[in-house]
Amino acid sequence: MNRIRHLVSVDDLSIQEILELFERAREFGEDLKGFASTCPGMISASLFYEPSTRTRLSFESAMQRLGGGVLTAAEMKTSSAAKGESLPDTVRVVSGAYADLIVLRHPSEGAAKLASEFSTVPVINAGDGSHEHPTQTLCDLYTLWLEKKHLEGLEVVLAGDLRYSRTIHSFAYALARFGANIVSVASRGLELPDYVLRRLREEYGVEPVPADTHQLKGIAEGSDAVYLTPNKPHQLSLFTDSQGLKVERVDAVYMTRPQTERHREGDSIDSYMRLGHETMDTEPMRDAILMHPLPRRDEISDELDDDPRSLYFKQAARGVPIRMAILALLLGKLKLKAKPPEAEARLVRVEMGKNPCPNTNCITHTEERHTRLGFRIMSRDPLRAACGYCSQEIPIGVVGCSTTRHFHRRDSAVARKIRADHLILFRDEAEALARGYSEASRG
Amino acid sequence: MNRIRHLVSVDDLSIQEILELFERAREFGEDLKGFASTCPGMISASLFYEPSTRTRLSFESAMQRLGGGVLTAAEMKTSSAAKGESLPDTVRVVSGAYADLIVLRHPSEGAAKLASEFSTVPVINAGDGSHEHPTQTLCDLYTLWLEKKHLEGLEVVLAGDLRYSRTIHSFAYALARFGANIVSVASRGLELPDYVLRRLREEYGVEPVPADTHQLKGIAEGSDAVYLTPNKPHQLSLFTDSQGLKVERVDAVYMTRPQTERHREGDSIDSYMRLGHETMDTEPMRDAILMHPLPRRDEISDELDDDPRSLYFKQAARGVPIRMAILALLLGKLKLKAKPPEAEARLVRVEMGKNPCPNTNCITHTEERHTRLGFRIMSRDPLRAACGYCSQEIPIGVVGCSTTRHFHRRDSAVARKIRADHLILFRDEAEALARGYSEASRG
Amino acid sequence: MNRIRHLVSVDDLSIQEILELFERAREFGEDLKGFASTCPGMISASLFYEPSTRTRLSFESAMQRLGGGVLTAAEMKTSSAAKGESLPDTVRVVSGAYADLIVLRHPSEGAAKLASEFSTVPVINAGDGSHEHPTQTLCDLYTLWLEKKHLEGLEVVLAGDLRYSRTIHSFAYALARFGANIVSVASRGLELPDYVLRRLREEYGVEPVPADTHQLKGIAEGSDAVYLTPNKPHQLSLFTDSQGLKVERVDAVYMTRPQTERHREGDSIDSYMRLGHETMDTEPMRDAILMHPLPRRDEISDELDDDPRSLYFKQAARGVPIRMAILALLLGKLKLKAKPPEAEARLVRVEMGKNPCPNTNCITHTEERHTRLGFRIMSRDPLRAACGYCSQEIPIGVVGCSTTRHFHRRDSAVARKIRADHLILFRDEAEALARGYSEASRG
Repeated sequence: MNRIRHLVSVDDLSIQEILELFERAREFGEDLKGFASTCPGMISASLFYEPSTRTRLSFESAMQRLGGGVLTAAEMKTSSAAKGESLPDTVRVVSGAYADLIVLRHPSEGAAKLASEFSTVPVINAGDGSHEHPTQTLCDLYTLWLEKKHLEGLEVVLAGDLRYSRTIHSFAYALARFGANIVSVASRGLELPDYVLRRLREEYGVEPVPADTHQLKGIAEGSDAVYLTPNKPHQLSLFTDSQGLKVERVDAVYMTRPQTERHREGDSIDSYMRLGHETMDTEPMRDAILMHPLPRRDEISDELDDDPRSLYFKQAARGVPIRMAILALLLGKLKLKAKPPEAEARLVRVEMGKNPCPNTNCITHTEERHTRLGFRIMSRDPLRAACGYCSQEIPIGVVGCSTTRHFHRRDSAVARKIRADHLILFRDEAEALARGYSEASRG
Repeated sequence: MNRIRHLVSVDDLSIQEILELFERAREFGEDLKGFASTCPGMISASLFYEPSTRTRLSFESAMQRLGGGVLTAAEMKTSSAAKGESLPDTVRVVSGAYADLIVLRHPSEGAAKLASEFSTVPVINAGDGSHEHPTQTLCDLYTLWLEKKHLEGLEVVLAGDLRYSRTIHSFAYALARFGANIVSVASRGLELPDYVLRRLREEYGVEPVPADTHQLKGIAEGSDAVYLTPNKPHQLSLFTDSQGLKVERVDAVYMTRPQTERHREGDSIDSYMRLGHETMDTEPMRDAILMHPLPRRDEISDELDDDPRSLYFKQAARGVPIRMAILALLLGKLKLKAKPPEAEARLVRVEMGKNPCPNTNCITHTEERHTRLGFRIMSRDPLRAACGYCSQEIPIGVVGCSTTRHFHRRDSAVARKIRADHLILFRDEAEALARGYSEASRG
Repeated sequence: MNRIRHLVSVDDLSIQEILELFERAREFGEDLKGFASTCPGMISASLFYEPSTRTRLSFESAMQRLGGGVLTAAEMKTSSAAKGESLPDTVRVVSGAYADLIVLRHPSEGAAKLASEFSTVPVINAGDGSHEHPTQTLCDLYTLWLEKKHLEGLEVVLAGDLRYSRTIHSFAYALARFGANIVSVASRGLELPDYVLRRLREEYGVEPVPADTHQLKGIAEGSDAVYLTPNKPHQLSLFTDSQGLKVERVDAVYMTRPQTERHREGDSIDSYMRLGHETMDTEPMRDAILMHPLPRRDEISDELDDDPRSLYFKQAARGVPIRMAILALLLGKLKLKAKPPEAEARLVRVEMGKNPCPNTNCITHTEERHTRLGFRIMSRDPLRAACGYCSQEIPIGVVGCSTTRHFHRRDSAVARKIRADHLILFRDEAEALARGYSEASRG
């Protein structure tokens, strides 16, 4: 019996699967019109609760290149949703017989996860709020892999608005997962957020060290560059000095536009960087490819458009073959030798009385009736947990053990020893008491 | 020479044709991806003058499952219509070479009928105001037929807002036509309108008797249930007593949402029913399937979603194979053995000087220039006539005879004897006089 | 090596190519469903920056009739453009791998030309502001050709709003190019603009003479009709007298709606013409076909709809086969024997310091960064030049010679003799002086 596979997060694919998908995407890309008999009679439905023409066209092109049909609902917000229908109901209807696969774009974080729980056909997350957009990340990785032949050990500069760019965050995790190194060159005030740095550390052992980017000119001015590597610190120490680790070779620069629509009062783009020949002509950039998720505004000078290292248009184009590979995989028309990832082995679901997710834009709040409150343990020491839908960290006051019916301070030694499947999380003592837990005798 | 067939109303198909379509729909449904070479090179156009994503996707899925192409105009209201183009002109253009079939959704009652008069390709009515939506009705019937193997004699509960739901009205007529019995369980104040009851009586001989639904619990509280059957009253008398006919077996419950967008001042949904285990666990409901046209709000409890009798998502899914069968039929790719209905044999067109249709939302008013005023005789005793486009009853004052040039009171014995093809309808005496008719000598 | 062919203007096709396309369109039109294997695996993208459902559906029907797929972006204005993306960037992305051909509709004049400069796949202009809409013109010509078997020497009446109709202007140029004669019968105040008459004269030698249209009745009242012919004036003199050239035979009447959305204060349609039997029953109209680009309002009476000479619905329908021929040609699936036009041989690009195009709606203003300022010489005596994107005439003050570095009055004898590739255009003396040119010694 085959379980339906979804693509809600890049983590739904194993590293080996991803690399194998890249091989197949390359074949698709070399003959875009040659695979029109791959998915005859099959239909994908684009359910877009917010507009994103580029993403939609890319998926619809990929599906049609495979010979499949496409259903387009580009304005779901103003149709079914307006009649008060829940996302699970819509998904159950569309997955009933209308379509063989759903491509979902939704403004709420966690929406794709919820959809996947109710769909009887594969769901692809085409962006859920500021949470995930896995096919964008895979497209970015694919471009890097195609140009550089490998990913491990690459030196990748992330530049621009690193604070608010979902694309950058996902790409950073993926680079760490594949063993690439990151040079973070943020516009002043738009640095990588702490929770991203924390996840890089806790999941991939990435430690930030100061980076010396003066050789890069232009782009690096006004930025406190940081070098992020999954390598052991002692290896780095060979290279570092008081100025920070010198960046002497760059394999790729990934530039982003300022996400002004998400900026808050006080954020400024007055001194937003603009990449031009000055930077790209430096020695460390000699073989660097230049990437950008597009659309761009002024952060990449037009003068670079004809530079052979400027890959951003090719990068966008490669969204089609990589999505062809993903569609074919999920529709059962592409068999991989690689094994899928272990089914969330190290993640434990725990229950809480009342929805504690602090993210008001999380699907657990907008579709409260249909979500099952569950959290993933992010770390045991200190104990930290994230919402099972939107991945945002939830505030934990005290921790209970379902066998002893006692509760403990979150950072206590006892808390650390409770078995994962016995863990109960409480917002505070009051909630623990209300649920019938008693304070452990202070030992 | 083949006349183009349209699907404006369910009555455009004979009972035998419908049953044969159900057989073919079942075949399509069992192998949705297996008929992709049925309609090669053919194109259907979705002309939607109001949004209805679900209906549109269902048709577009069906057409693509058959291997055809699809043209989507989801917002006709803001495009051609905005340039002041008439519906007949739009239809003539699109049916010229653009498409081989038109799926029309329009906010005015009678729009599909008008479109069919000008189209050179088949037109399917995908909803014309609150008038008809035949493929929805066929989908509902098909689901019932597929689950119960037959339709005649079934006991079907209609529940909720029975006043404003177009879907319910059409379904009721169809049930009566196929000889099924109806238990009307309306939310207080939202009972079946008189004109629906009248049509059920006049066309299908359905007589309402009080129903005793106390065994159904929950759902029936606060509702004066009515039993509607095309059977002879003397047969019923065996079962009835002072409490009304006891409902001891239900084959299907068809629940609807409150159509709040059509409610008027004074209509209330404060006590709107909510269907849950309480009702479905009663003895009469043991084998009852639960249907709903969706989208639902709270009128069906989520707790029933996993109940095998809950058919609403399957019902929606079956919209695809039944529409495949209808498309294939109208496109000439499916031949039926059954004969089509007699061409409106018992309906007579009569002419009137000025458009007397009282329905301001009727297409005869919005596209006055292109409609031919004509009416169908609904009954002779008393004489009643309906608009040939929107089916709404028109007020008749006096009746003329085109041979004698006399006019008579509508309920007079003479009026009843005038031959159908000599009938002239007048709003009042003044109009009759103005048209040159004189009062018959009072005998 | 094949250069990509675009269809930005009708002039991108040679006369012989157009006639050959007509032959192929006829074949397509005779069996619309028979060519579904012409473009397997190919995709066209409809990028519409303003809505135009009819045009979009016509292209999408044509592409699907050829067996290709379609990507629809009907509301580009509110998607990518809203994120501040430039047209060249959007075009580079979509032409990368998404689509094999782009159909572009844009509100700015010159947009299609700009798009073609950046696209790596063929671009078809589906309307750029009030500039060009070549497939509409080809559809009109094709209808005329199909009905009359030839184009040269035909007598074509253009009627209605001749001032603001882009369709009429393009059609007039095309008629002149193919050697047909035009009878201009404008609604009072809505005559052909001077620049259209000028271009007809300069490019095709068309001279206007007064026309006597009293035989046409109705339609010609209140209009100072003009006869436009590419024939030599001395030939005409045989027929003319003080009343003007008598119009005794009409092959086609091309009627247009009032373009009220473009009218200015003072323009009136109170006395806008309405074509009915009165006019069409006159002797000169006996074999005249009646055309209209649609949508129409009241300018053609419904009473003519059933007249066999009323071709407007067929004309619209023929948009599909002619677009099939064009798509097949540009996608490399249709080989023509005829040669393409000489590559703008008599057009010289000249440079100017600052964008002098007076058309504020020209793409050179809205996408200033991406357009290369260049102009076409429209005539040497007097020297006149047009914007290379929007074709609008630009004001020239003085003229420089790039070898002598002198400037001269625009209408001077010297200016006329400067070699085309040495010409430099200046707005005025000040600009010439600022660019380092000196006044020629007055000879």
